[in-house]
Amino acid sequence: MKTGIIGLGLIGGSMAIDLRRRGFAEEVIGVEAEPVNASAALKIGLVDRIVSQEECVKESDIIVLAVPVGTASRLLPEVLDAISRSESGKTVIDVCSTKEQLVNVVRNHPARRRYVATHPMAGTEYSGPWAAMPGLFDGHACIICDPEDSDPQAVELIEELYNVLNMRTIEMPAVSHDVHTAYVSHISHITSFALALTVLDKEKDEKHIFDLASGGFSSTVRLAKSSPDMWTPILSQNRENVLHVMDTYIEKMNAFREAIAEGDEEKVRSLIEEANRIRRIIR
Amino acid sequence: MKTGIIGLGLIGGSMAIDLRRRGFAEEVIGVEAEPVNASAALKIGLVDRIVSQEECVKESDIIVLAVPVGTASRLLPEVLDAISRSESGKTVIDVCSTKEQLVNVVRNHPARRRYVATHPMAGTEYSGPWAAMPGLFDGHACIICDPEDSDPQAVELIEELYNVLNMRTIEMPAVSHDVHTAYVSHISHITSFALALTVLDKEKDEKHIFDLASGGFSSTVRLAKSSPDMWTPILSQNRENVLHVMDTYIEKMNAFREAIAEGDEEKVRSLIEEANRIRRIIR
Repeated sequence: MKTGIIGLGLIGGSMAIDLRRRGFAEEVIGVEAEPVNASAALKIGLVDRIVSQEECVKESDIIVLAVPVGTASRLLPEVLDAISRSESGKTVIDVCSTKEQLVNVVRNHPARRRYVATHPMAGTEYSGPWAAMPGLFDGHACIICDPEDSDPQAVELIEELYNVLNMRTIEMPAVSHDVHTAYVSHISHITSFALALTVLDKEKDEKHIFDLASGGFSSTVRLAKSSPDMWTPILSQNRENVLHVMDTYIEKMNAFREAIAEGDEEKVRSLIEEANRIRRIIR
Repeated sequence: MKTGIIGLGLIGGSMAIDLRRRGFAEEVIGVEAEPVNASAALKIGLVDRIVSQEECVKESDIIVLAVPVGTASRLLPEVLDAISRSESGKTVIDVCSTKEQLVNVVRNHPARRRYVATHPMAGTEYSGPWAAMPGLFDGHACIICDPEDSDPQAVELIEELYNVLNMRTIEMPAVSHDVHTAYVSHISHITSFALALTVLDKEKDEKHIFDLASGGFSSTVRLAKSSPDMWTPILSQNRENVLHVMDTYIEKMNAFREAIAEGDEEKVRSLIEEANRIRRIIR
């Protein structure tokens, strides 16, 4: 299976590594807009060749769009156009964190059924080809959105691809996907960004305050290193859901603030005890 | 050196393990108010004997108060009272996350100079004797507050104790300590608690939404498992600093909300880029 990956960052690069190492792709070709990244991806050995988008679509059986979701919204119709003009049998996927707007962009495209909307839920706070690593996807979930809008053979092939990446696939409407990711991913990033901004403000006055930063702080704030290229369009495309979750979050924060301000230890304790039930959800 | 530890939870228990394994304490005796925990601490082998507080103070060269800060405020004067009545040469430390109120409680105590206020900045989100582990403190910082209010020999001895635990000690006024910990520790816990409450609210309606929770979410929310017994008094004792940091945090959160609500992608991008500078502080 010849695989073309458009966007050789953390996700595209990590896919390239394991799809080839595990024998799913006999050749991986890549498209990368940023010359420094393209050159690095080639030198690191993520891909066999760097090609143009046109060549990539022409030569590949599977085309993976691994670019920020704003860019994906622009490229997906182009790639489907190119596929319409070529022989059939090619399959296109994206790997973006928001889905509703993306599937709407190509809802009536004649080649829509060759496209499978997917979201492999794995990653780190790092980006670019240097961040790519083997095993990134192992053991995580991958959401496949609106599979009924894709050809069954295309869905089957992509399930096989994610099977090779050791992911369990879950089917879900694009609309539900975006609600779910607002809760299990997007809000976590926003709380980390806000925490980073808070402590950086303080650091302006007291240079050495964070010599003390320990493990708990680091783990809470590490997502704040995440790339603006990736996250700006996500927060934009998933605006309504994200705002809804943020409003609940700000409400909870204010409840805490009020209980602390009033010295209401019983209330603080009961909020913490309630929060402790997060053990239902994470280990 | 005979060491007595009052409170055999995560911190007290972990100290017991390494102080003995590394030869600093030839015997470790413990006081534990909760019978189940006391019995566990003995069975696990954290301590050689469980004794009363009175016996502990009487028999030990070093007494470690490893209880929640509210309890420490009550016990510290009692322990110093007992020391005043006994032969000199005993040293008392606490290991709490807030310091200003605690040092104020014993500011004029006749045995004040035998007390060293310390905060070993290490821990996990787990609690109780079962959470104790070897190596917990290795490589972390330990703050020693107001060392000029303690006997130099007492400070020296405690520095040796933390040296055995592989911690680097930093001296700081209690007042500054509380400001710093509000930024590098307390606010992280509150943001995690609020995040947990937010997602748990949603889980009431959609039972399976969090099958998807991935690594980023887990690391952001894991501090929400922290013990209410420990955290209620911390947030109470450090109220003013914590409220100040929360206000900045809520301000940053609202700035994000406004930028997203207005679809101002440039503003969202610039907030994320600013937040990315957290790389100055954490690796």
